[in-house]
Amino acid sequence: MLEEAGFVLTDLERDGIEVADFGLSELEQTGLEVVVYVNTERVCAKEIVMFPGQTCPEHRHPPFDGTPGKEETFRCRTGLVYLYLDGPAAEQPSCWPAKADRGAYTAEQPSCWPAKADRGAYTVWHEVVLRPGEQRLVPPNTLHWFQAGPEGAIVSEFSTQSRDDLDVFTDPDIARTTVVTSNWVSAEGESEDPGAAAHR
Amino acid sequence: MLEEAGFVLTDLERDGIEVADFGLSELEQTGLEVVVYVNTERVCAKEIVMFPGQTCPEHRHPPFDGTPGKEETFRCRTGLVYLYLDGPAAEQPSCWPAKADRGAYTAEQPSCWPAKADRGAYTVWHEVVLRPGEQRLVPPNTLHWFQAGPEGAIVSEFSTQSRDDLDVFTDPDIARTTVVTSNWVSAEGESEDPGAAAHR
Repeated sequence: MLEEAGFVLTDLERDGIEVADFGLSELEQTGLEVVVYVNTERVCAKEIVMFPGQTCPEHRHPPFDGTPGKEETFRCRTGLVYLYLDGPAAEQPSCWPAKADRGAYTAEQPSCWPAKADRGAYTVWHEVVLRPGEQRLVPPNTLHWFQAGPEGAIVSEFSTQSRDDLDVFTDPDIARTTVVTSNWVSAEGESEDPGAAAHR
Repeated sequence: MLEEAGFVLTDLERDGIEVADFGLSELEQTGLEVVVYVNTERVCAKEIVMFPGQTCPEHRHPPFDGTPGKEETFRCRTGLVYLYLDGPAAEQPSCWPAKADRGAYTAEQPSCWPAKADRGAYTVWHEVVLRPGEQRLVPPNTLHWFQAGPEGAIVSEFSTQSRDDLDVFTDPDIARTTVVTSNWVSAEGESEDPGAAAHR
């Protein structure tokens, strides 16, 4: 998807794509695929790939080590992103599915209502729609979440240092575990057959 | 060039492209075309477009306001970039033109030898070649300069805050003046006919 859009990766980067399912095991609904270009003590830049309707769950980046916390700018490169922040709530959020039940998810009609929203895991509903070339700064320590539109999205993130371990999620079930694998689709398949690896 | 490569800009960004000729009035040889996505007190991200053989002249980003100075990562997106830093000098720098005299520049044979190199405006010659998907971090206060290859280049810059006014150039003739115009080619033409503006 990145290559189709003209983003060239090195082999090392391709092999190091982070697939974050936030410990929820519902990657197609809730998760991110991330290429980290740089993450020093001062600067971080990433390319985020999102499946259609995939949601990065609500969280904030708290102050640490005398800094105000992570400041991020999200820039939509392809597709469409619905970004939610504190502020006047959208009466009818775009992420809300027109024809699917809340929480329902099928391949034919991806539900854009984020899983667990009914259980209080999503509390900010001020909507900002980002189309290609549009961007938004999210100040430190500000609750936010975002969801890709029906065709998925590529989003560039420009920020201060990323410290995923410090992120505070609204959903208490979330663990910001990162799975790094070069071939996560087949790796998932293989995990159903633990014997496969032994035969390689 | 950005759009060809898949980088989408808003109208506002297109209208605000920075054309920096560093006060040398030799833009095709020495200069940059820059889209600034974000530049806060903490984070900066830019897209840099370079003509074939165009050079960003040697400079460093000194400490300021208690910070170590600007830290930058250059990521080549398209084309080829020759980045020069302090370190073991390249015996035969790639920017050195094979067939052109030093400093000569014609449309048929763009000289890659940076203008004024013979006069000491370029002092670091450790060469790093960046191809699409490759990148390099330049620490604060480190002398560096870079030049696009024969097909030009698009380079993403991820950094701490940009304070162009603080940059220290090796060439004392350089002023980091920035011309912001939506239509700089025709604007240059118009400047030869000062009466034209009065007739609009």
